[in-house]
Amino acid sequence: MTLPAQAFDARAAATALAELRAIAPLVHCLTNQVVSNFTANVLLAAGAAPAMVVAEEEAGDFAALASALLVNVGTLDRPQAAAMRAAVGAASTAGTPWVLDPVAVGALAWRTAFCRELLAFSPAVIRGNASEIIALAGGAGTGRGVDSTAQSDAALEAARALARQCGALVVVTGATDYLVDAQSARGIAGGTPRLQQVTGTGCALSALVAAACGCGAVRLDAVAAVCALMKLAGERAALASRGPGSFAVALLDELGTLASADLAERWCA
Amino acid sequence: MTLPAQAFDARAAATALAELRAIAPLVHCLTNQVVSNFTANVLLAAGAAPAMVVAEEEAGDFAALASALLVNVGTLDRPQAAAMRAAVGAASTAGTPWVLDPVAVGALAWRTAFCRELLAFSPAVIRGNASEIIALAGGAGTGRGVDSTAQSDAALEAARALARQCGALVVVTGATDYLVDAQSARGIAGGTPRLQQVTGTGCALSALVAAACGCGAVRLDAVAAVCALMKLAGERAALASRGPGSFAVALLDELGTLASADLAERWCA
Amino acid sequence: MTLPAQAFDARAAATALAELRAIAPLVHCLTNQVVSNFTANVLLAAGAAPAMVVAEEEAGDFAALASALLVNVGTLDRPQAAAMRAAVGAASTAGTPWVLDPVAVGALAWRTAFCRELLAFSPAVIRGNASEIIALAGGAGTGRGVDSTAQSDAALEAARALARQCGALVVVTGATDYLVDAQSARGIAGGTPRLQQVTGTGCALSALVAAACGCGAVRLDAVAAVCALMKLAGERAALASRGPGSFAVALLDELGTLASADLAERWCA
Repeated sequence: MTLPAQAFDARAAATALAELRAIAPLVHCLTNQVVSNFTANVLLAAGAAPAMVVAEEEAGDFAALASALLVNVGTLDRPQAAAMRAAVGAASTAGTPWVLDPVAVGALAWRTAFCRELLAFSPAVIRGNASEIIALAGGAGTGRGVDSTAQSDAALEAARALARQCGALVVVTGATDYLVDAQSARGIAGGTPRLQQVTGTGCALSALVAAACGCGAVRLDAVAAVCALMKLAGERAALASRGPGSFAVALLDELGTLASADLAERWCA
Repeated sequence: MTLPAQAFDARAAATALAELRAIAPLVHCLTNQVVSNFTANVLLAAGAAPAMVVAEEEAGDFAALASALLVNVGTLDRPQAAAMRAAVGAASTAGTPWVLDPVAVGALAWRTAFCRELLAFSPAVIRGNASEIIALAGGAGTGRGVDSTAQSDAALEAARALARQCGALVVVTGATDYLVDAQSARGIAGGTPRLQQVTGTGCALSALVAAACGCGAVRLDAVAAVCALMKLAGERAALASRGPGSFAVALLDELGTLASADLAERWCA
Repeated sequence: MTLPAQAFDARAAATALAELRAIAPLVHCLTNQVVSNFTANVLLAAGAAPAMVVAEEEAGDFAALASALLVNVGTLDRPQAAAMRAAVGAASTAGTPWVLDPVAVGALAWRTAFCRELLAFSPAVIRGNASEIIALAGGAGTGRGVDSTAQSDAALEAARALARQCGALVVVTGATDYLVDAQSARGIAGGTPRLQQVTGTGCALSALVAAACGCGAVRLDAVAAVCALMKLAGERAALASRGPGSFAVALLDELGTLASADLAERWCA
């Protein structure tokens, strides 16, 4: 059974993006080493303020004062797991919203157990591809590393189960991004296959989702705003580039120069 | 005595590149933190699938299921050494081919001993500059960190000794890249000095060599293919850029858009 | 009381930049994981030779043979702190000049204590934003992660106190960069706000400052040269780009192609 997904509210998303840029939320990123530079540049381009504070000794203090926290397990190791536990615990206590990106969960047992452990600390949002969301919800893992082997709509039931289980908004990204909570699902179609040819676009989107959670706007609209922002920036960058190198450059340019009203224009018929 | 080097078979290389792109081998990279992002983007551009799984807890499992494994010691530390031992051990057992990039071996004793220890696990290919290959083979180290102080042809005898010692194909890169096994040596001339002005082009080539080992084609032709691909992409990118920043962008574009037949056209008279 | 700052000597800086490029100093970078790739590419573009040797087992040996050492605590953790202690100790013994970049000191207690501990090993230069320099000198921390909440001239007194305390040249960067020692202060005005929209431009400047310390020229002129180089490259890149992605690319191009005489032309009226 496939859930019916409504369209997202593009005008509310445009308003939320303008608010995010005005607030410039400070996003504490505990993310993987492959994408840390790109993630910081994506956050800066979109108008947020990145900070990577990685030590167990400091991660809790910083999570408590940040606007939002990102936990991405792409290159999880033991010291980082300890820092993540400290950060997520402090975020829960301080009321800092946090986002889980369960990279390659399902394909690897150790990180799968770790991510399930973290679910007890009530992430505000979980953002993954279909394979990761299905695996995190308890289904059979089908991923091959970071790539999903399933379409995003195949994960809608798993996303709803996960949303009910931990009270989070679950974002399943793909050709259509779905924002799924216990009651409803909203879809954002668009983007470009080029986004798969640059490493870290999904990871960077999770960081933008954290920024969205840390800017005080209506969460659903703000999360939809950053998903739409990445898709529209990708569409425009694909037109302005001739390969994966110039696409990544143009993507950052578009993230930095798109007007928030462009979201409404792109998705309101 | 300098070994006579034959020309490589550019038509066979073109065929091998087409096969690599069709197969999209999954390359498990245990590489240095400076180049992990660039390496992932080079692999994606060339048509392979990168995955960086770094923890000792997961590296063995992932090496067993990957198409190929890369071990690059550029920023070696104790936790990474443990993960590399686990990955190389699992790769040997599972039959996953693996590639050693002995960054700065010779200049630093700790990593030199570590790389020599790993040779017992039969790498499929060793890829380094002349200083590194000479030092790994037991000669006096002459490197200054990551830069070679010798031309690639000065390392041909050392490369052959290393190839005989551990049964690997040894690739010595420079203005001419040499592919050396126990019986023969093949040369690929070309490229551009610009490749030295961007960090990680050699490291990324080692990742492409791993991809070449993981795609089931004839190994010598596939390794020659990725060496030629990097040289030709560099040559074209140098013409399309005005400094090291735009060169790196153009290099990724060329890696993503070059036709495999272009290799044959460039090197077949 | 604000210190009066003199103009820097732009002709001497131009000469020092030419010397740096002729010498190509080998810079050992112990820096944060977010900016390691960008830092290496900035050093290469400017004509220096980067090397990131991170393990406690090797950091001391390498610091002793490098031209200069950079210590940047942006993503400090315990293993890196141990490597930094080894490197700074060996640098002091060997006479290798070293540079401290106290990222986010003041905002976080653990790294603040660590940086104060390192001051005993006589850094040649300390490079930070106003918040960091004020906090390192013992004032109340006002930073929000990596961003300064104060203008660079607000830190001139703190910089002088720090210079007197540890015998270092203190560089406070901002819209005007100040080079402060126990006796004098020199200012370099210019640059572009775009430099704040790309992660790591300050960190990379600290690496260039290390290169400046490692090239044997008059230190004050050489440090002024790299500060001016980053400002002028930023100004030109801002004109040649349309967003933060293309700005970063153009910045590397300008660092690689600017003539040293351009510094004199830009700042000598």
